Amino acid sequence: MAQQNIFDNETFFEGYKKIREREVNANNIYEIPALFSLLPDMKGKKILDLGCGFGEHCMEYIKMGADRVVGLDISEKMLEIAKKENSDPKITYLHMPMEDLGQLKDTLSEDDLMFDVVISSLAFHYIEDFSGVLRNINSLMNKGGLFIFSQEHPLNTCFTGKNRWTVDENGKKLHVNLMNYCVEKETECEWFVDNVKRYHRMFSTIINTLIEEGFSIEKLIEPYPDEEILAKYPDYSDNLHKPDFLIVRSRKNV
Amino acid sequence: MAQQNIFDNETFFEGYKKIREREVNANNIYEIPALFSLLPDMKGKKILDLGCGFGEHCMEYIKMGADRVVGLDISEKMLEIAKKENSDPKITYLHMPMEDLGQLKDTLSEDDLMFDVVISSLAFHYIEDFSGVLRNINSLMNKGGLFIFSQEHPLNTCFTGKNRWTVDENGKKLHVNLMNYCVEKETECEWFVDNVKRYHRMFSTIINTLIEEGFSIEKLIEPYPDEEILAKYPDYSDNLHKPDFLIVRSRKNV
Repeated sequence: MAQQNIFDNETFFEGYKKIREREVNANNIYEIPALFSLLPDMKGKKILDLGCGFGEHCMEYIKMGADRVVGLDISEKMLEIAKKENSDPKITYLHMPMEDLGQLKDTLSEDDLMFDVVISSLAFHYIEDFSGVLRNINSLMNKGGLFIFSQEHPLNTCFTGKNRWTVDENGKKLHVNLMNYCVEKETECEWFVDNVKRYHRMFSTIINTLIEEGFSIEKLIEPYPDEEILAKYPDYSDNLHKPDFLIVRSRKNV
Repeated sequence: MAQQNIFDNETFFEGYKKIREREVNANNIYEIPALFSLLPDMKGKKILDLGCGFGEHCMEYIKMGADRVVGLDISEKMLEIAKKENSDPKITYLHMPMEDLGQLKDTLSEDDLMFDVVISSLAFHYIEDFSGVLRNINSLMNKGGLFIFSQEHPLNTCFTGKNRWTVDENGKKLHVNLMNYCVEKETECEWFVDNVKRYHRMFSTIINTLIEEGFSIEKLIEPYPDEEILAKYPDYSDNLHKPDFLIVRSRKNV
């Protein structure tokens, strides 16, 4: 299986970097606070960050008291920046697609293996074999450990075309044009470049697959704008119609 | 709190009865098979059916070998029919809104109390205090018992107006006009009569509330038309855009 490595495409990389550098973006407003709200006390924990990108989260986990952090990403370009900007003796960055996680046992020392917390920010909608990756994650975790991840919301991943919204004559978004939520498939969207591949799974499939692979569900977040966010960023009221993200906290069964 | 008892409204009752009597309806195609697929071996079990309506399911559970079934409904009219058409010495029908479940302990003999399986078909979207009802259900269940229910899908309950779909010039449904999925509220819809009240909860709220009230999630179903259904009933292809129902199997924590 050839994994998509869109992040090493020049055009994509530059566009993506710009959006993440903006102070106000959906990640900063919704996704990161929600993801971080689900973290346990990180003191003394061994952490695996799947799709670590520029490594900012890895560095945060060290600041929170984590003992060891392994950051894994498919993009060499991102890891280069991670190693420059977010380096720490307690962090190991690895260049590897998530689909190859099974090989981690051959790569890491015994000290670094068996994680207490596995975290992933916005990477799972790029994964075709969700079951397979979950099985590998489970095999690398201590019993009772936490697996916490965010992904694009299923109401997003089902879109293929460009007409996601119906807008009025002033450009105000009236409603989402929801199609084919029940058709699980590879979807392509335009995001800086054409043909960014994502994998659409229904809400129930995501939850059922976690359960089948040995995790129990602890909490879900579908972040949406509260009054405070709406007062500061009125443009984000569109997200009352549908959330952009789904965040899940699950625990490896004892 | 005054519970809505729309089922005892004459117009509603007649309309509802007609739709349920049709051989081909969304209940028969999707909801009932999904709900029943989640049932355990019912032999010797004590069952509570919340919103039992005409009692058809109660009778099915007896046929499956259940030891005792208590059927509870807010509608006197429906229970009258249940007692006529689906009567059995092992079934007790009770006229009671689900919100008063806490009083069941004063109503039933000790023999009838403490259920192994609690089941509810399409009633929970009429419940305002979801947490409160779940707490009462939990207190009436044996540890490790199953709570299995269906409700209108959250992509349905968020609708208030009439323009749920965008259709082309031939009346073909193109997409769902999804609005305010993130606004949890009482919604009114037209269904045989005006102003049928429902309570919209996001997917995450439904799951989180179950977990907070002492249940663990075992399986979710969002039924949609497979090839077999599409071949038999091509009109049901609309349900590829959004499911009508959500079905949940959860277990009372040990």
